[in-house]
Amino acid sequence: MKTLPKLLAGVGLIALTAPLGAFSSDDINQKVAEQLAQKAQSSSLGYDIVESLTVEVGPRLAGSEQDKVAVDWAIAKLQSLGFDRVYKEPVTVPVWRRGIAKASILSPFPQPLVVTALGGSIATPAQGLSATIVRFDTLQDLQNAEAGSLNDKIAFIDAKTERHRDGKGYGQTASGRSRGAVAAAEKGAVGIIIRSIGTDHDRMAHTGMMRYEEGVTAIPAAAISNPDADLINAMLKRDKEVVISLELGSERRGETTSYNVIAEVKGSTKADEIVLIGAHLDSWDEGTGAIDDGAGVAIVTAAAKHILDLPQKPERTIRVVLYAAEELGLLGGKTYAKEHEAELEKHYIAAESDFGAGPIYQIDWRVADTAHSPVINAMKVAEPLGVAAGNNKASGGPDVSMLPALGVPVASLRQDGSDYFDYHHTPNDTLDKINPEALAQNVAVYAQFAWVMANSKVELRPLPPKE
Amino acid sequence: MKTLPKLLAGVGLIALTAPLGAFSSDDINQKVAEQLAQKAQSSSLGYDIVESLTVEVGPRLAGSEQDKVAVDWAIAKLQSLGFDRVYKEPVTVPVWRRGIAKASILSPFPQPLVVTALGGSIATPAQGLSATIVRFDTLQDLQNAEAGSLNDKIAFIDAKTERHRDGKGYGQTASGRSRGAVAAAEKGAVGIIIRSIGTDHDRMAHTGMMRYEEGVTAIPAAAISNPDADLINAMLKRDKEVVISLELGSERRGETTSYNVIAEVKGSTKADEIVLIGAHLDSWDEGTGAIDDGAGVAIVTAAAKHILDLPQKPERTIRVVLYAAEELGLLGGKTYAKEHEAELEKHYIAAESDFGAGPIYQIDWRVADTAHSPVINAMKVAEPLGVAAGNNKASGGPDVSMLPALGVPVASLRQDGSDYFDYHHTPNDTLDKINPEALAQNVAVYAQFAWVMANSKVELRPLPPKE
Ligand SMILES: [Zn+2]
Ligand SMILES: [Zn+2]
Repeated sequence: MKTLPKLLAGVGLIALTAPLGAFSSDDINQKVAEQLAQKAQSSSLGYDIVESLTVEVGPRLAGSEQDKVAVDWAIAKLQSLGFDRVYKEPVTVPVWRRGIAKASILSPFPQPLVVTALGGSIATPAQGLSATIVRFDTLQDLQNAEAGSLNDKIAFIDAKTERHRDGKGYGQTASGRSRGAVAAAEKGAVGIIIRSIGTDHDRMAHTGMMRYEEGVTAIPAAAISNPDADLINAMLKRDKEVVISLELGSERRGETTSYNVIAEVKGSTKADEIVLIGAHLDSWDEGTGAIDDGAGVAIVTAAAKHILDLPQKPERTIRVVLYAAEELGLLGGKTYAKEHEAELEKHYIAAESDFGAGPIYQIDWRVADTAHSPVINAMKVAEPLGVAAGNNKASGGPDVSMLPALGVPVASLRQDGSDYFDYHHTPNDTLDKINPEALAQNVAVYAQFAWVMANSKVELRPLPPKE
Repeated sequence: MKTLPKLLAGVGLIALTAPLGAFSSDDINQKVAEQLAQKAQSSSLGYDIVESLTVEVGPRLAGSEQDKVAVDWAIAKLQSLGFDRVYKEPVTVPVWRRGIAKASILSPFPQPLVVTALGGSIATPAQGLSATIVRFDTLQDLQNAEAGSLNDKIAFIDAKTERHRDGKGYGQTASGRSRGAVAAAEKGAVGIIIRSIGTDHDRMAHTGMMRYEEGVTAIPAAAISNPDADLINAMLKRDKEVVISLELGSERRGETTSYNVIAEVKGSTKADEIVLIGAHLDSWDEGTGAIDDGAGVAIVTAAAKHILDLPQKPERTIRVVLYAAEELGLLGGKTYAKEHEAELEKHYIAAESDFGAGPIYQIDWRVADTAHSPVINAMKVAEPLGVAAGNNKASGGPDVSMLPALGVPVASLRQDGSDYFDYHHTPNDTLDKINPEALAQNVAVYAQFAWVMANSKVELRPLPPKE
């Protein structure tokens, strides 16, 4: 308790009606957590960080020149904030360039389409590709099509993404984007287009990663906007034979090195134990990466900075990890898990912010069953911020999702993502989509989470088996 | 009253508690107007028309190949609806092609910009144009700049368009689009970009017509999206020297012939007198022209069709005019006024629907002062549809705005345009932006308006002098 006088000087608002000795270290930690929330909510730090990233760097596709700019920006920003340690760790990433993307309906009624290449797609032949489309409600319907039934056709997966606070609509349709090309090629298709995985009705196509498989012909893959998908449906009602042309200039150019950028607030008594809060530094190339994931970068960085600025240190080390190349397949997260394998047993808990800047309404956990109630109790301090207790089935966010299988507890600080998929992976992912107050609430909750976890006495392991 | 039995058969719902002789022709007309509203609101005809136009024609820039397709579509559609007369009248229009449009910030922080050429703009040199930008709050500030102060610069008008139900924000900023290039060139600028004249914060640039003046150097003119304008402002806060590159491939290619397409419901006793309800057939080239002005085409066409389908004829002729090339400077409207000069004294009243598909909340008039109260009374039939009585200062809509000066009374059926300028003149002007119920309300009010005016006994002339 030797830091108490200093703590009280720094905190000020602690009610001194009880005798000093009545404060347990838990009480103190709770009070500090309350102060952190006040600080975070009255500070523009989080917003300033995402403003800086979107203005001074902007689009930062992993493996691009701008990705290097982003890494330099992150190092400089974290250093200027005075973290105890700032460093980067290499991550091998593919180099892919979007190039041009054009599409149009050739018949029955010629009209241009708004289209974007899916990430990782090969190009079409230089003169483009023209073929009749065959429409499917879902990826599964495409997978159920007869072999050869799509010879010389372009497959069209037309699944609509539903709007939900927790974003579960995305989970229901995104596999059409990632696995559609393989499924279509297996049936003989020469290309695939999908209805954008997005909840908007803007004339913007949503990009995102897709995959090929060895042994299956690689075919060009693109997304069209929701209104364009509607247009094709309107034509299909009139005429089964809808012919489109597609021209993609995308190219894959080997690999390069990107970096996970890491900053730490060094712990006091348990400096070797780690509370990891992460976000991903890379973004898609058509927006400025504000909600995905500039917001997350800002949230975890500002949260850690507010703790850094406290008069006392957290017991455990708080590690901010800004992951490389999440969009290209969680590459930074996977590399981190591999390179830090020996240290993972020292990871007390991990969480990632990667769902925009909507307010956090719930914290889900993946901790020992015996720890679930205690951590819920510990985080009751976030209740005034509108944060409810959640389940014990969290995945923790994409870049930490591989950690529970390696024994590391995680938490998911669940954000209201009702409009997240309106903008996700489109040119529309820009700073104006971020509500500064909601962002500050996120910073507040992450600061509380990191602080409380860094000082928690609860044993979070072993994790319950996955259901 | 000889049509009365037929009328009753067709109308059915007239309350027969009063003796038959108690119905004046005014009563009958009001009852028919009520029936028209019921018919219009339970019919999908309006929506079907705009769906057909946006799907089967789509973008239809005046003077383009698709404009010809649109004229053919309109003739065929009006004929298939069985109007008493369907014809077209030539309108000379310029031919302008958009070509490519690219822009980016070169310094202090390289980022791509979302840009579109303003309608009528010349191209940049083939290699593009790079220059420092000079920002102005308004067109007026630009006009007040010192001569020569923009030598070798690109002017940037950064006026934000306010959201209002009646769209007045557009009126406050649109002159920056139409007259900015001349003002900028007069100060020595080599190009101009403007913040899009739009109320949205989507990453879409709003096009629209601009003008050059003889004796002033023509310079390339483009609009950037609202988020892009925000981005430039964020950079200007950091560094006065923001350099952008601009590449436009637009070209003007002489003139061609387009057409006003006209359909009539022939009047009975006053067939030579005309109630004109119009809309414009052309659209900008990046959306499918749904709200601007497929909606108007649908509204006036469906309204007239519902009257055509009545068991009795209107006394005056109802003339539906689908104007050519409104977007390029009211060319169809001006040509109509000129070519029909001798007939204008027989135009009882004119109105144009060109403000999307939001519900009509008020009717403004421009009629003789003595006629204002009587027409308000006559149109009380629209009150249950949410339509209030308006002022006597209407302009009547763009393509009929020149008619009052020529003595022709007009009405403005004011629509709720709160979100109209979110989509106006962008790729986002697509069918999904139209609410079918609101569209049907418009059809109902236009049908009532046309019917009541075609049978009105009120003398609408002479117009009061313009204030
Ligand atoms: Zn993300
Ligand atoms: Zn219009």
